[in-house]
Amino acid sequence: MNLKQLSEMLGLSQTTVSRALNGFPEVSEATRQRVLAAAEKTGYRPNKAAQRLATGRARSIGLVMPTSSEHHFDVHFGEFLSGIGEVALKHDFHFVIMPADPHDEEKAIRRLASSGSVDGLYIGYLRAGDPRIATTRSLGLPFIVHGRSAGLPEDYAFLDIDNEAVFRDAADHMIDLGHRRFGLINAPEEFDFALRRRQGAENRLREAGIALDPSACLAVPMTDDQGYRAMNALLDRPARPTAVLCSSTAQALGAVRAIYARGLKLGRDISLTTHDDDLPLLKPENFSVPLTTTRSSLRAAGVRIAERLIGVIENGREPDLQEIWHAALVRRASTGPVPD
Amino acid sequence: MNLKQLSEMLGLSQTTVSRALNGFPEVSEATRQRVLAAAEKTGYRPNKAAQRLATGRARSIGLVMPTSSEHHFDVHFGEFLSGIGEVALKHDFHFVIMPADPHDEEKAIRRLASSGSVDGLYIGYLRAGDPRIATTRSLGLPFIVHGRSAGLPEDYAFLDIDNEAVFRDAADHMIDLGHRRFGLINAPEEFDFALRRRQGAENRLREAGIALDPSACLAVPMTDDQGYRAMNALLDRPARPTAVLCSSTAQALGAVRAIYARGLKLGRDISLTTHDDDLPLLKPENFSVPLTTTRSSLRAAGVRIAERLIGVIENGREPDLQEIWHAALVRRASTGPVPD
Repeated sequence: MNLKQLSEMLGLSQTTVSRALNGFPEVSEATRQRVLAAAEKTGYRPNKAAQRLATGRARSIGLVMPTSSEHHFDVHFGEFLSGIGEVALKHDFHFVIMPADPHDEEKAIRRLASSGSVDGLYIGYLRAGDPRIATTRSLGLPFIVHGRSAGLPEDYAFLDIDNEAVFRDAADHMIDLGHRRFGLINAPEEFDFALRRRQGAENRLREAGIALDPSACLAVPMTDDQGYRAMNALLDRPARPTAVLCSSTAQALGAVRAIYARGLKLGRDISLTTHDDDLPLLKPENFSVPLTTTRSSLRAAGVRIAERLIGVIENGREPDLQEIWHAALVRRASTGPVPD
Repeated sequence: MNLKQLSEMLGLSQTTVSRALNGFPEVSEATRQRVLAAAEKTGYRPNKAAQRLATGRARSIGLVMPTSSEHHFDVHFGEFLSGIGEVALKHDFHFVIMPADPHDEEKAIRRLASSGSVDGLYIGYLRAGDPRIATTRSLGLPFIVHGRSAGLPEDYAFLDIDNEAVFRDAADHMIDLGHRRFGLINAPEEFDFALRRRQGAENRLREAGIALDPSACLAVPMTDDQGYRAMNALLDRPARPTAVLCSSTAQALGAVRAIYARGLKLGRDISLTTHDDDLPLLKPENFSVPLTTTRSSLRAAGVRIAERLIGVIENGREPDLQEIWHAALVRRASTGPVPD
C-alpha cells in the first residue's frame, strides 16, 4: 500500500492524505480520523521521502562521529548515543552519522546540513573558541551543543555539567582529608570540559594555599591504557602525589592497575577520585576498592539533549536554553586521610 | 557555489556537470577535467541530494541500533561501528542509524530501505531462523549479514566467526588441563552465535565422555553485572565447576569479581577462558590474573563488512561471499590444572 493507492481508496488527493497523516490543521478532524483509520487498517506506512515532502521534515538528527584508524570507539560517546536513541525511538526519529577526522569536523557538519536529510544537529566535544558553533549557526538548522566553548559568548542552546565544580569538589574533599600533594589525570585540555576541570582544581587548591605543579597535571585520552601510563608517570615523581584526580572511570581502571602493580594501597597510600559518567561497564562501586566519584549520567544528558532538539524541530524555536548540571560527590573507599 | 552557478560559469548544463563530477562515461575526458578543475578551484561540493539524483546513490549504509530504556549501549556494537566508520570515512560514506526495539527490527529495516536514504544494509545479532534475511532480500538493496542464522540455507553474503570452534577450542584446552566439571556463562541463546558456542562446548565434552549439565549453562546478556551474577550462581552449585567458559570480556569482568569476592584464586581454584572481541577497554592481559581467551577483533569484522558492502554498492554485485574467521586461542594465567 503506497500513498497513491491509499488516496485512491479514500477518494482523496495525495496531498490531503499526507497532510491528514501529518496532523496539518488544514484538514478537518473527521477527514483526519477517516484517513488514520484506513492507514491503520491497511498497514500503510508513509514513505520517508513522501513524508519529508509533505512536512518538510526528515525526522532525523545529524551528528558527527570522530573516526580514524587509531581512534577506538569511545564508550563515553556510546553511552550518550544510547540516551539519544531512547528518545529518538519514542519520537520516531533516526540519526544520520557522518564519520569525520577528529580535527576536521566542520566539513562533516556542512555536509550533513547540505544533504537535506537531517532536521537538526548536535555538536559535542567542544574546544575553546570552537568555530563549529558559528558554522552550525550559519547553516540555518536547529542545533544544540553538549558542553560549552570557553572564549565565545554563551549565546547558543547548550547542556553542560559544571566542570569547574567537578574537580573543585573533588579537590575540596581531599584537602579536607589533609592532602597537600596533588596530581591530575585529566582529558586532553584542547577540550573545554577538561580545561574547566583543571581550573576548578587549581582554584580550590590556591584557596588552600597549595600550588598545583603543572608537571603533575597530565592530560591524556580517556582510556584505560592512558590512565595506566599517566598514573605510572605520577608515581615516578620524586615527591609523588598522595591525592590524584581523574577525569573518567576508563582512565581510573588503568590508574588503579598502576597503583596495585607497585604494591601500593588505594585509599591509604594514594587517594583517588574520578569523574563518573555512569558507564554501565565501569561502575565505581564495583572496583575492588570502591571509587570516590563526582557523578553525572552521560545517558541522561543524551536523553535531555534529544528531547530538547526534537522539541525544537517539532514545535518550533525555543529560547536558547542553557542548562548546567551539577555532578554529585559520592565518597567511597578510594579516598582516605593523607598518609604519615 | 552551487551546481547551477558552477554550470553557468562553465557554460554547461547542470546534468553534464553533475555527470562529469560523478565519472559518467557519457562525458568526454576533456570536459570532465575542465569541470573537476573548476570544482576544485571554486571549492564546490556537490549537494548530497543533487548527487543522489545524478548517481542514484546516497553514499550511505543503513543499520539498526537496538534501543530501549533498559538497554544500555553495547560496547561490542560500538567497537564494530568504529570499524565500519573507518572504512566509511575513507570512501566518503556515512551511516543512517534507525533505533529499534530489539524485538522489532524488521519494521526499522523496512523503513530504512523505503527512506531512499541508504544504498545498502547491514544486519547483525542474528537469531536462529531469522526472518530479517528474507525481509532484507525482498527490499532489493545490497546487504551483508554479520553472523549466520541456524536453520536457514546459507545463500546470502555473510561474515561470521567459527563460533562452534570458539567454545570447542576453549573446552579442549581445559580438558587437557584435567578439568571435568564445566560451567558456561554464555550470551542469550536466542542469538545464533551463542547457540553455536554452546554446541561447540557440548560436542567437545561429549567426545571426552563428559556430560555438560544444562543447569550449569547460563545464558545472560554480555554485561559486567550479568557476568557477576552468573558466576555467583555457578559457585553456589553443590558441586561447583572448576572450569568456566565465558562469552565476553565484559561478562568476565564481573565473573572475576565474583571469584575474588569468595576468596578463590583464579587459575587455581577456578579456571576461566573467555571470548575476546578485542575491546580496547577490556584487554584480557590487563586483568590482575591475565585471562586465557579465544580472540577475534570485532573492529576488524566491521572494517571487512564495510569494505565488502561499499564494494558492492560502488562496483555492482559480488557473488554471495561467505567468510568464516577462526578465533585464536591465547593461553594466559586464568587457566591452570584442575585442583585436587
